[in-house]
Amino acid sequence: MFTNYSQMLSETLTSIFKKLPAKSVHAHCDGPCGVYDPSSARVTAEAVLSMTKKLIALAPAGNDQASISAYNNTFSRFVAIKEEESQKAKKELLILWTDYFKPEHLATYPDLHDTFWKAAKLCSACKVNIDQTKAEELLAAVQKIHSMFWSSKGRSDSWVTAS
Amino acid sequence: MFTNYSQMLSETLTSIFKKLPAKSVHAHCDGPCGVYDPSSARVTAEAVLSMTKKLIALAPAGNDQASISAYNNTFSRFVAIKEEESQKAKKELLILWTDYFKPEHLATYPDLHDTFWKAAKLCSACKVNIDQTKAEELLAAVQKIHSMFWSSKGRSDSWVTAS
Amino acid sequence: MFTNYSQMLSETLTSIFKKLPAKSVHAHCDGPCGVYDPSSARVTAEAVLSMTKKLIALAPAGNDQASISAYNNTFSRFVAIKEEESQKAKKELLILWTDYFKPEHLATYPDLHDTFWKAAKLCSACKVNIDQTKAEELLAAVQKIHSMFWSSKGRSDSWVTAS
Amino acid sequence: MFTNYSQMLSETLTSIFKKLPAKSVHAHCDGPCGVYDPSSARVTAEAVLSMTKKLIALAPAGNDQASISAYNNTFSRFVAIKEEESQKAKKELLILWTDYFKPEHLATYPDLHDTFWKAAKLCSACKVNIDQTKAEELLAAVQKIHSMFWSSKGRSDSWVTAS
Amino acid sequence: MFTNYSQMLSETLTSIFKKLPAKSVHAHCDGPCGVYDPSSARVTAEAVLSMTKKLIALAPAGNDQASISAYNNTFSRFVAIKEEESQKAKKELLILWTDYFKPEHLATYPDLHDTFWKAAKLCSACKVNIDQTKAEELLAAVQKIHSMFWSSKGRSDSWVTAS
Amino acid sequence: MFTNYSQMLSETLTSIFKKLPAKSVHAHCDGPCGVYDPSSARVTAEAVLSMTKKLIALAPAGNDQASISAYNNTFSRFVAIKEEESQKAKKELLILWTDYFKPEHLATYPDLHDTFWKAAKLCSACKVNIDQTKAEELLAAVQKIHSMFWSSKGRSDSWVTAS
Repeated sequence: MFTNYSQMLSETLTSIFKKLPAKSVHAHCDGPCGVYDPSSARVTAEAVLSMTKKLIALAPAGNDQASISAYNNTFSRFVAIKEEESQKAKKELLILWTDYFKPEHLATYPDLHDTFWKAAKLCSACKVNIDQTKAEELLAAVQKIHSMFWSSKGRSDSWVTAS
Repeated sequence: MFTNYSQMLSETLTSIFKKLPAKSVHAHCDGPCGVYDPSSARVTAEAVLSMTKKLIALAPAGNDQASISAYNNTFSRFVAIKEEESQKAKKELLILWTDYFKPEHLATYPDLHDTFWKAAKLCSACKVNIDQTKAEELLAAVQKIHSMFWSSKGRSDSWVTAS
Repeated sequence: MFTNYSQMLSETLTSIFKKLPAKSVHAHCDGPCGVYDPSSARVTAEAVLSMTKKLIALAPAGNDQASISAYNNTFSRFVAIKEEESQKAKKELLILWTDYFKPEHLATYPDLHDTFWKAAKLCSACKVNIDQTKAEELLAAVQKIHSMFWSSKGRSDSWVTAS
Repeated sequence: MFTNYSQMLSETLTSIFKKLPAKSVHAHCDGPCGVYDPSSARVTAEAVLSMTKKLIALAPAGNDQASISAYNNTFSRFVAIKEEESQKAKKELLILWTDYFKPEHLATYPDLHDTFWKAAKLCSACKVNIDQTKAEELLAAVQKIHSMFWSSKGRSDSWVTAS
Repeated sequence: MFTNYSQMLSETLTSIFKKLPAKSVHAHCDGPCGVYDPSSARVTAEAVLSMTKKLIALAPAGNDQASISAYNNTFSRFVAIKEEESQKAKKELLILWTDYFKPEHLATYPDLHDTFWKAAKLCSACKVNIDQTKAEELLAAVQKIHSMFWSSKGRSDSWVTAS
Repeated sequence: MFTNYSQMLSETLTSIFKKLPAKSVHAHCDGPCGVYDPSSARVTAEAVLSMTKKLIALAPAGNDQASISAYNNTFSRFVAIKEEESQKAKKELLILWTDYFKPEHLATYPDLHDTFWKAAKLCSACKVNIDQTKAEELLAAVQKIHSMFWSSKGRSDSWVTAS
């Protein structure tokens, strides 16, 4: 910023600036804020499981037109919410994988890549199907990542779900 | 769906359908999945506070063009992230206010509206300024809502932050 | 910005800067642009009502596979649009509530919080169901907020709908 | 839906279905809800002009670090809001152009394409620069489209701005 | 930035700054990055055609509840994906029209506006219906724009699809 | 859908339905449309490199207030666009990793996970800094993935950039 401006000023003020220590702005962290928390992935995975169960249980209240339209409205919305929450779960997991975990973690967690890849594929599977087993596997995968994450920070936070 | 179709079929099959009980699809819940959790608001409020502190601490590494551009790049990004996280915090809080809390909660929490209104206004204040006091007040407001929320469900989950 | 830079310059140029009056950038407004207008909420509430009516009137053109697929395509899209417009209506209303209205308005509009809470809950109800009564109540709630808003600015803009 | 199902039923019920008239679901409208309103574009164009003016008027309250950071925070946010509102203005205008206006309107409005193209390019110009003249030209272009739109519907709604 | 600051400094440093040549930042381009490429529109148009074909071919695996729910889940998702990809195709096309093409291109491509208008309307048609002919027309329209675009840059890139 | 309805009809029509073959809807593909193409990642990586170069070259046209504001407007926008395009590049790459590539590809591409992890981290690095080397490494990583992708489909599409 102020290319020529600062250039000229720096020529004028060289003697002063030479004394200043160069500071490194991003020493320890390539992420923006450093607030990583697997609870975001956990909440969305719980929502995926909840929507999956509700879709399985869903049935029209009657066979009149209004009941069937209500049923279709709900079915269509629940599929869309399941889709969105699966997508968010995937996104939250991949933020942990690409931004939080670093090469030095690979020694401690040699199955890091595989764990995240399978968890991400479970998110896709939960979108494509109405499959309670897959939704439960996704929640279990998030729990595994929860443990991996907190152990990497030297904490052992317990796993508490909202539902 | 199948207006004329089901109409005609129902005429044909009236005697069968009459036996079916009408089921209510949305008995207890006007939200989609029932998985509410104030941890989403908490994570974003933590991020707002983190970005605010980082913005206050930020300084260019030197007065050469590259250092100043790096500084401006980071400053501009941190403001954008603070903006986005404040917006998400507000959104997460308002989901609790508009979807989770119901008229019957007003008796127990008479300051419900005021609590959420002030918390939402703190989100705006954290966007508009770089103000650590406001960011800390926001986190405190989220903690108050955390307690309110879990007490309304008969739980007393402790307040655990990521940072 | 320019921590040490401006610090040093300010030492050099102190005598000049001391004469400058401090200006407050955000005197009267915590919002970004000051252009609030309930017409955004009105347009979306009209769209919610329109989609609700169309969903109620919708029927397949025939019972062949193509007609039924066309019907399902339209039904599914209309539910998604109703969802999106209800969500936008809620968002636009909550911007007015959290950003435009200030504590000093509470004396004039003591039911401010309750009005917005109910309007927001109507947005949710319009998503969850295909319910023309709720959609009409939502439009009426937006009209009430329209009057509240313009009266707070000393104007009495008439209520003109697009449809 | 129910490919084989409806196929078989239709064989059984052919005599009934043959009497049904085929209905066209989308007779007059290729858009989803039919609620078009140039007020959405108008509100965003007003916001673009407002932010542009505020950016021109913006100055730091002092030359201390806190004032300059506050200034930069606001400058950066206002640019982002100007960007977003310009983008929304463009989007709202293009919805009118691609979805509302039909080939039969070209006879009445032979400069339809050119009007929208120039208006869209003004949105881009308002992003790229801080240019009050362009922002005023954009608002004037939206006003022209407002008149064009309402005259095409046989209405002559007056032009009322929020600010 | 630094209103009074730079104003005062410029008074002090006038003699130096007067020597500096004014540089134009946006000489040839009103877009942000100059990387335009119709392949983004092509990929989305291919996806629209793919989803349209899959919707036409879709049928439930059986008439048990699970098969029909699976069918409805997939149908509903495919409609949503077709919607989203059609919307993206439209957006990508309109970026080329509003940002890349300039008034000087009108002499060479007198049907520029009409070509993009029809292509955008095809995107809408692909949303509203499940119509393979329209989806193929959309892909053909994108191919025409691909040729127009590259010829305007003096290149003749061949048309290679992913599927 | 139609739980009891189809249940009853299926009892009535069992003899007919038993003849129908069960079809598998998602035989070879867990993604929605099967149209994968690394060109989407390539376009965004090109944009990241372009914005990075433009940021490095950027300088104010003069030291008057208007020039400096114009400079800051452009700087701030370019950072935001670099951020957005880096994010899109990451998203497009991770779609290939999580949805296109399958366990059976690991034998042929044993460095699959590592390649994508590093490419994703390069996207983050391009956000955090203004670093032309990283932006060029990102484009090279996308080119490697382009070759990997097309070879997995038995094609050898050449690498053609837009700029």
